[in-house]
Amino acid sequence: MNYDQIFDSAIERLHSEGRYRVFIDILRNKGAYPNARCFAGHNGPKPITVWCSNDYLAMGQHPKVIAAMEEALHNVGAGSGGTRNIGGNTHYHIELEAELADLHGKEGALLFTSGYVSNDATLSTLAKILPGCVIFSDELNHASMIAGIRNSGAEKKVFRHNDVEHLEELLAETDPNVPKLIAFESVYSMDGDVAPIHAICDLAEKYNALTYIDEVHAVGMYGPRGGGITDRDEAAHRIDIIEGTLGKAFGVMGGYIAADRKIIDVIRSYAPGFIFTTSLSPVLVAGVLASVRHLKASSEEREGQQAAAAYLKQAFAEAGLPVMPSTTHIVPLMVGDPVRAKKIADILLAEYGVYVQPINFPTVPRGTERLRFTPGPSHTEAMMDELTEALVEIWQRMELEIRKAA
Amino acid sequence: MNYDQIFDSAIERLHSEGRYRVFIDILRNKGAYPNARCFAGHNGPKPITVWCSNDYLAMGQHPKVIAAMEEALHNVGAGSGGTRNIGGNTHYHIELEAELADLHGKEGALLFTSGYVSNDATLSTLAKILPGCVIFSDELNHASMIAGIRNSGAEKKVFRHNDVEHLEELLAETDPNVPKLIAFESVYSMDGDVAPIHAICDLAEKYNALTYIDEVHAVGMYGPRGGGITDRDEAAHRIDIIEGTLGKAFGVMGGYIAADRKIIDVIRSYAPGFIFTTSLSPVLVAGVLASVRHLKASSEEREGQQAAAAYLKQAFAEAGLPVMPSTTHIVPLMVGDPVRAKKIADILLAEYGVYVQPINFPTVPRGTERLRFTPGPSHTEAMMDELTEALVEIWQRMELEIRKAA
Repeated sequence: MNYDQIFDSAIERLHSEGRYRVFIDILRNKGAYPNARCFAGHNGPKPITVWCSNDYLAMGQHPKVIAAMEEALHNVGAGSGGTRNIGGNTHYHIELEAELADLHGKEGALLFTSGYVSNDATLSTLAKILPGCVIFSDELNHASMIAGIRNSGAEKKVFRHNDVEHLEELLAETDPNVPKLIAFESVYSMDGDVAPIHAICDLAEKYNALTYIDEVHAVGMYGPRGGGITDRDEAAHRIDIIEGTLGKAFGVMGGYIAADRKIIDVIRSYAPGFIFTTSLSPVLVAGVLASVRHLKASSEEREGQQAAAAYLKQAFAEAGLPVMPSTTHIVPLMVGDPVRAKKIADILLAEYGVYVQPINFPTVPRGTERLRFTPGPSHTEAMMDELTEALVEIWQRMELEIRKAA
Repeated sequence: MNYDQIFDSAIERLHSEGRYRVFIDILRNKGAYPNARCFAGHNGPKPITVWCSNDYLAMGQHPKVIAAMEEALHNVGAGSGGTRNIGGNTHYHIELEAELADLHGKEGALLFTSGYVSNDATLSTLAKILPGCVIFSDELNHASMIAGIRNSGAEKKVFRHNDVEHLEELLAETDPNVPKLIAFESVYSMDGDVAPIHAICDLAEKYNALTYIDEVHAVGMYGPRGGGITDRDEAAHRIDIIEGTLGKAFGVMGGYIAADRKIIDVIRSYAPGFIFTTSLSPVLVAGVLASVRHLKASSEEREGQQAAAAYLKQAFAEAGLPVMPSTTHIVPLMVGDPVRAKKIADILLAEYGVYVQPINFPTVPRGTERLRFTPGPSHTEAMMDELTEALVEIWQRMELEIRKAA
């Protein structure tokens, strides 16, 4: 039994597939986002532009958010000091849960330390509470949903991505008397496409299934108050559980679910991933409160983001770059090979000060490696023009196909 | 299929067992810890003293920690904006991992969003990387370790709490050629006892097993630099993976492992719970950096905590209260019934302004419900005397046994 050898070969496998990950070492410059400093492998901190952040609306830099966090820091201190049940339930947590419940038009909400934990804890617990539950899962669901479903031990039926007919086939063949849960996302973050929410809800009603939607790449960004695609499409009341994150458009950290009172109470009472962990720092919670309240009232950031995404998609398309058919704020360029994707990203960083992380397996399927751009309200048209020119130069240098529209 | 009915009965079960949890709504007063304000169910915020926080050394209130967080907030903003691999790897994260590796004398460290996630992600991934791995687990291991072990799918053999002979029996009966992992804690947080670390390491060497220790209730508090019980007992070099938290003695939020470079690289590269989640806010990381550095150099807080714990244990014992035989900073009083434990806690809060959360199933086994006090360097002898008098009065009022030492 040679442990070292096993660990070595696990790492070697990643190198040989060209997907060993090196984390780039950066610090953002508050107030100057998407500007940042890059450290390792360069001569001292070097200015870069961040193109792959999930702080989609730059709310992590918003003066209201910073001020709220500073106030909480001086009001109550750094950490919560305990689990929600044992000393870690602060007034900030209660206020934020009320605010999030209101955002989604639900009776209650429940905070978790991350979106990953929200999905893992809720899905695994829900399926354990419902004896014999069958979970219907979109094939492109996020790793955290897959983890929650697997950890539940429930039977899983995977339907083809956004394929309502396939979902109905699977529902129809399942015993009408067992509990059913349909788990899917609103915005799929690596492709930028959107689920047919109403059609899925129609099936849920027809076959008496519960619905669980992951809105982490949509909350704050869609709908008149930032309640996500379910807000935009007026579908929130048809969904049993809406899951969101506090670490992307809201700019801070953490995750949550919103649902009716009973479901919240069950998850709160039974989910180990909720019960046995120190609650979110009140400093973070205070920042999120400010962020959610701001984005409920202001559409300026949402509009700025949509305009930037539309501009960049058009610029890429006009230049003949392989932009994928996203209908959202996400702008992916297909590369199709992990080594090539990393090489493009390396050149962008070293020669152009552009930071975009190559996306490879297991985040996307093998053979669909890509660059994923997330322009926001702070990325200017000049920046996007320069980026497009840089990419065209690299595409030519590497002799990759450029396909101008007819 | 009536979902509501199932949810109702799940909640009813908790009420009927007397263990439905109501979270108390508080805000700490920075600079005046353990003082705090209590909200719900009272007429406006009311002053209380917190006796059950895991902010053991009040570092969540330390001026250095607050200053570091404020500086980071103004330097880089609220959140990291991404996973460690995609935009969320800041210079703070890299510095803190180096600091934690040094704290435990290991080659590397890896941050997670919580201690729960550290255990779940590391144990489940490790056992998947090691084909056929058998995990030997102390019967009182924390829920997060149990989750990680279960989620790994590996075979688990549970040894009786701190029972080295039983552990050896189980090791001896296992195929010498399969990978083995012994998972245990240093300080068991609900009883306050300590594992026989060297004896367990002797067995690990004899049977060629890896060792994994959870030091969440010990880091910052034991050893000359706060490296935990493995630091105090000079055992860190004999342990393969040391897991700790940033949310208890270090006063902020988050979790980590420290281990040799290879193991860190494997977990970093393969654990979904590490890969697919927004990284810790740089504001938190900056606070922890200040906290860890301070506690490496200062023993004042550790000594204050040990003195307070010794004082309170003696006061309880002399008053004839059923204090459990803890050898650490944790001071548990056995009650043995969930309804009674809650009633005592309710009286303490309503009549004495004392906040101590009753600990019930599933945090401790049924029938061992208790009150768990965590006095720290900021709890004065006068506070502890008053607390003891209050408890004696309640014990008499409720006609519970008081057993004075001979």
